[in-house]
Amino acid sequence: MKLDSAGLQVLSHGECMALLATTPIGRIVFTDRALPAVQPVNFVLDGMDIVIRTTAGSKLAAATRRAIVAFEADEFDPQGRTGWSVTVVGHARAVDDPVETERLAGLPLTPWAPGSREHFIVIAAEQVSGRRIADAAGG
Amino acid sequence: MKLDSAGLQVLSHGECMALLATTPIGRIVFTDRALPAVQPVNFVLDGMDIVIRTTAGSKLAAATRRAIVAFEADEFDPQGRTGWSVTVVGHARAVDDPVETERLAGLPLTPWAPGSREHFIVIAAEQVSGRRIADAAGG
Repeated sequence: MKLDSAGLQVLSHGECMALLATTPIGRIVFTDRALPAVQPVNFVLDGMDIVIRTTAGSKLAAATRRAIVAFEADEFDPQGRTGWSVTVVGHARAVDDPVETERLAGLPLTPWAPGSREHFIVIAAEQVSGRRIADAAGG
Repeated sequence: MKLDSAGLQVLSHGECMALLATTPIGRIVFTDRALPAVQPVNFVLDGMDIVIRTTAGSKLAAATRRAIVAFEADEFDPQGRTGWSVTVVGHARAVDDPVETERLAGLPLTPWAPGSREHFIVIAAEQVSGRRIADAAGG
């Protein structure tokens, strides 16, 4: 078990991708008018890509167009003080190709938010890192 | 009930601060070597400030020193597809004053991660925004 300098368990690439597949919610981290911004989204994994749906004119669609973004998902248990976090960094792109759009529309990804959301954003998981925090009571 | 352009319920400043007080975990969003970065932390509210503990030499301490950061907390129910998210944007500062450090050390903020974490970072909640997503099944 590898630990980082903060004493957290370092997750392997495979562990990170497996954990990402267990949760429907993540957070896109981007820059909005030169300020750090973050927005929760529901998502689905498509191979090594993070796929989200939004509306074509949304702030998210505009801010992530051809940008490098971070995407984070986690799960924590406040009682046990345990949990994990996985962060992906990579290029985001808007899907313009109708054939790809049709394929992505077939993924099990139903937007939680109301309204039509037929615009897809794909984030390539170019850098993947993750940490697990185990119960520190014993340490 | 005010809705935003995405159909999400807009939370008032008071609702946002009340929700922040209900959860021990949030995520700091910052820039690390020109790339978007995000790190989960446990935190406590101190008036209108977000207070977190870290180690003096941590990447987080270095990256947030005199920076404008975002801080996000949320809670979602995947079954009901409901939840809320609150984002704070403001200046982060490292606490250098020993009197302030002693006061902050008395807050109910126990680090989850192992190791000594006697370095405090304070984020001023200068901009506060929040959204709630209600069950969209009826809409």
